Amino acid sequence: MKQSLVFIPTTKEVPSDTEAVSHQLLLRGGFIRQEMGGVFMYLPLAYRVLQKIQTIMEEEMENISCPETLMPVILPASLWKRSGRYKNYGPELFKLQDRSERELILGPTHEESYIDVVKSTWNSYKDFPKTLYQIQTKFRDELRPRFGLLRNKEFIMLDGYSFGGSQADLDYSYEQFNQAFRRIFDRSGLDYISVVADNGAMGGQESTEFQAVADIGEDDVAYVGEERSGANMEVAQGIPTFQVNEVFEEPGELTKVATPNAKTVVEVGEFFKTDLAKIVKSILYYADDKPVLVVAPGDHEINEMKLSNGLAAKELRLATHEEVQNLLGVQIGSIGPIGISEQVKVVMDPSVTHLHNFYVGANEDGYHYQNVNYDRDFTVDEQFDLININEGDLEPKTKQPYHIEQSIEIGHIFKLGTFYSEGLGATFLDQDGKEQPIIMGSYGIGVSRLIAAIVEQNNDENGIIWPKTVTPYDVHVIEINNQDETIVKTAEKLEEEITNSGHSVLLDDRDARAGVKFAESDLFGFPLRVVVGKKAQEGIVEIKERRTGEVHEIELSQVVKFIRDFYNK
Amino acid sequence: MKQSLVFIPTTKEVPSDTEAVSHQLLLRGGFIRQEMGGVFMYLPLAYRVLQKIQTIMEEEMENISCPETLMPVILPASLWKRSGRYKNYGPELFKLQDRSERELILGPTHEESYIDVVKSTWNSYKDFPKTLYQIQTKFRDELRPRFGLLRNKEFIMLDGYSFGGSQADLDYSYEQFNQAFRRIFDRSGLDYISVVADNGAMGGQESTEFQAVADIGEDDVAYVGEERSGANMEVAQGIPTFQVNEVFEEPGELTKVATPNAKTVVEVGEFFKTDLAKIVKSILYYADDKPVLVVAPGDHEINEMKLSNGLAAKELRLATHEEVQNLLGVQIGSIGPIGISEQVKVVMDPSVTHLHNFYVGANEDGYHYQNVNYDRDFTVDEQFDLININEGDLEPKTKQPYHIEQSIEIGHIFKLGTFYSEGLGATFLDQDGKEQPIIMGSYGIGVSRLIAAIVEQNNDENGIIWPKTVTPYDVHVIEINNQDETIVKTAEKLEEEITNSGHSVLLDDRDARAGVKFAESDLFGFPLRVVVGKKAQEGIVEIKERRTGEVHEIELSQVVKFIRDFYNK
Repeated sequence: MKQSLVFIPTTKEVPSDTEAVSHQLLLRGGFIRQEMGGVFMYLPLAYRVLQKIQTIMEEEMENISCPETLMPVILPASLWKRSGRYKNYGPELFKLQDRSERELILGPTHEESYIDVVKSTWNSYKDFPKTLYQIQTKFRDELRPRFGLLRNKEFIMLDGYSFGGSQADLDYSYEQFNQAFRRIFDRSGLDYISVVADNGAMGGQESTEFQAVADIGEDDVAYVGEERSGANMEVAQGIPTFQVNEVFEEPGELTKVATPNAKTVVEVGEFFKTDLAKIVKSILYYADDKPVLVVAPGDHEINEMKLSNGLAAKELRLATHEEVQNLLGVQIGSIGPIGISEQVKVVMDPSVTHLHNFYVGANEDGYHYQNVNYDRDFTVDEQFDLININEGDLEPKTKQPYHIEQSIEIGHIFKLGTFYSEGLGATFLDQDGKEQPIIMGSYGIGVSRLIAAIVEQNNDENGIIWPKTVTPYDVHVIEINNQDETIVKTAEKLEEEITNSGHSVLLDDRDARAGVKFAESDLFGFPLRVVVGKKAQEGIVEIKERRTGEVHEIELSQVVKFIRDFYNK
Repeated sequence: MKQSLVFIPTTKEVPSDTEAVSHQLLLRGGFIRQEMGGVFMYLPLAYRVLQKIQTIMEEEMENISCPETLMPVILPASLWKRSGRYKNYGPELFKLQDRSERELILGPTHEESYIDVVKSTWNSYKDFPKTLYQIQTKFRDELRPRFGLLRNKEFIMLDGYSFGGSQADLDYSYEQFNQAFRRIFDRSGLDYISVVADNGAMGGQESTEFQAVADIGEDDVAYVGEERSGANMEVAQGIPTFQVNEVFEEPGELTKVATPNAKTVVEVGEFFKTDLAKIVKSILYYADDKPVLVVAPGDHEINEMKLSNGLAAKELRLATHEEVQNLLGVQIGSIGPIGISEQVKVVMDPSVTHLHNFYVGANEDGYHYQNVNYDRDFTVDEQFDLININEGDLEPKTKQPYHIEQSIEIGHIFKLGTFYSEGLGATFLDQDGKEQPIIMGSYGIGVSRLIAAIVEQNNDENGIIWPKTVTPYDVHVIEINNQDETIVKTAEKLEEEITNSGHSVLLDDRDARAGVKFAESDLFGFPLRVVVGKKAQEGIVEIKERRTGEVHEIELSQVVKFIRDFYNK
């Protein structure tokens, strides 16, 4: 394809709030343009990447015998009312009406559509396990879309679904998708970690997230070892370093100490000149409108997901300053578990039991206790893991130190269970002729987000460096001078030869300075660049590898071979 | 792919209002399911057809160097307000709001998005001609969606756009798309006619429709000769047969005749025992609220598109019974041009001037004039072509008789002009440095509708007969008995060999009776069926061609060769 015919609106100016490198580079390289906040156009170069990724996905899904389908974008609200999600999905659900005032939604995911269509056909245990998937544009009315293709109102997903009659069916399909997704990410050139995840709003049992490591990522993952096995921060469990390092001390005398102006953990820690872990913090929450005091080591954050799960709370929120004052009669910085009102349930992270002579608020403004020891000075109603791990905390099984990195969630596989089949009356007859709900799994990859993740992981100061498998074009052929007949003829002959050899080519035939062409070529980031310059007369061109920067002078007759070898290695 | 793993919900019962054969067959064969009125799911077999068609499209668009893109589904209403279409598009435009009450639409077409994004990059006459396209799901809130995939609220389109700086640029791109679209239809196995069309609501100059002949079609096309050149009924011009056959008569005496109970053209024709053409009808319209009497031969329908264009009317409607009574003092059946009120503009189809001694209403209830002759007995304010042609009327240039057929509009190419560029301020500098609006063309194919058209044209009493190029699978391999080890092994070996030879296979490995399998296989309609039965032991299978019904006994070692030869011929 001649570059002069392709719409590639490169630009040097990107909006100042363009935070993500991928967003900057995709805008600068003319790959994408924003139609409005969170809604993008895929211009020719980006569309080719999208196609490459889709082809990889289709091949890998075919490999696990999962048939492709396409569900509607607009769905009747009635379908989602039956599953209960019309109400529960919240303000991220786009709602609209047709001309006869029928209520519709724009599908953000399609569990209901799939279970509803398969249920009348698959109704015996003999029909399972089965799978279906689609690659489709989806909609979620994000409050704050950002980071270019990372968090959008309109985005492209691969969403797969499995249907089973037993736990074994579900396990089988889950593992099939697990393997297929890994191959998709591997083939797309991504560096990713698979981690145990919380199911969040979806309900169900086991689930795994695939996280691409990237500074701009909105998730945190914790992992250990070379295989980087780990978990999403929301569920990662660890042994705090203080618990490992703590040396036994004889319990001292419980003493109330005036701590003027020391309210935060850090301030109190400085006041007592001690390790932050020993400043045990006490924070008042409301769980389903009942007050709960949460006690935790001062150097670890409270994990509200764990807390909420541990309390089996539907709603959880921090108490306001006013509520603390009204209920406990003290300010937030001075709350503590000793002598707390009996109206308040007290829960504690178990790591606190390993501390000796620690510090807590005294339930009196401006005072803390020192030489506090659990059991001697106070007890609690319940203990469970309720903190985020810190970098360096030990993974409980392997006792290896955790690494924590920011990451982009690129995929997620769930063992959903029977939530949707029960809601939509999707049952089958088991071996004993008994009616049972179909057991579902659901499996997703953020396709547009994958593009952003690839660019986040593959770039340098000059632009994008596409992996060979997903590059818009395999080769960029550049005419140094489009007025020189030898150069033009050589370049066009190369374009034809390379195309015939099965590799895609973009031929920069534009009337522009060589420097401009090279800079744009680096920005576009195709793996190979063939420069046709003055030496074309001697039958020689220059080939540059984008990733390594290596330059080769190659005879014209050897160019196709060079490209073939490069792509085969 | 094993059929036991694929979701193909065949059914014998289709809703009684399923009129189109394609709708019936696609439902019966489990290709599609309705999510709601006008909104369909593409199940695995249909999705594969969709993919085949998309691949053909992408190859042909690449052939004319037209780059593929993907525009958003949700668009800001503000964009469409700038072009004026937000108001003018009418109730077919889906409107919605996001959580911050921003007004959005679901894009039914993307002229605005494309011209708006290219305008800052392409701004010199040297930048043209250029083209872009996408294949995308689109939305139109149809009042009466029907005929399965033919008229939907959610549908798939290929929409292409051209951008030029001169009429020559536009002509060039138009011809490129014209050729590419013809190759797409040819390769999809469609029987189609390209006809001159009215631009309808889009404005602009030349336009061509591609119409697939089909009984269920909602359009009518008129064509002549073996090349079937012609026009949409809305614009087709012809010479009525009566005009050709009319024999000169001496004008008779104008006579008023009582015609009791004869009100319609047919009744008056029977009364006078004459050809319907000679019962010249007079019909009162209101064009932009002014009364217009339309005079036309009785055997031809009035074409309101031509009438509206001829009158340069923005709004055109038939007068009501009451309005006729109030204005003319007679009932509808007795209006005529002789002695009509001077308040009423009179227009006439020119063919009437060729009639002798014809009949018109006498503007007196229950009376008609006979022996009427134009010019002698009345004149009119204007004459222009305002009737639909009839089958057999002559095409003016070639003098060949017209054939008229029902058809499905599968594609449309328009020379749009500058409507959108002017609305969205998309200009370029011409050779003289003068600012000019970009000249656009717009080019569309109904992709989902194409599937329906293919099925309408390719079926028999047993089911669909897919053209080789768009069949979901090239070959259907059927195990007569999935308990017989030889049969199963032979079938699986064939599946592997055929797949390796580059042809797609669906292997019916289900536990079902042979009769059921054959009936479903005919319904699915893949071009070749390989039946693995008892003779598998002797190394022989049976191959049946779906279209011809021809059956061949083939040695196992020759099966791949047979398939290859079949697909290459």
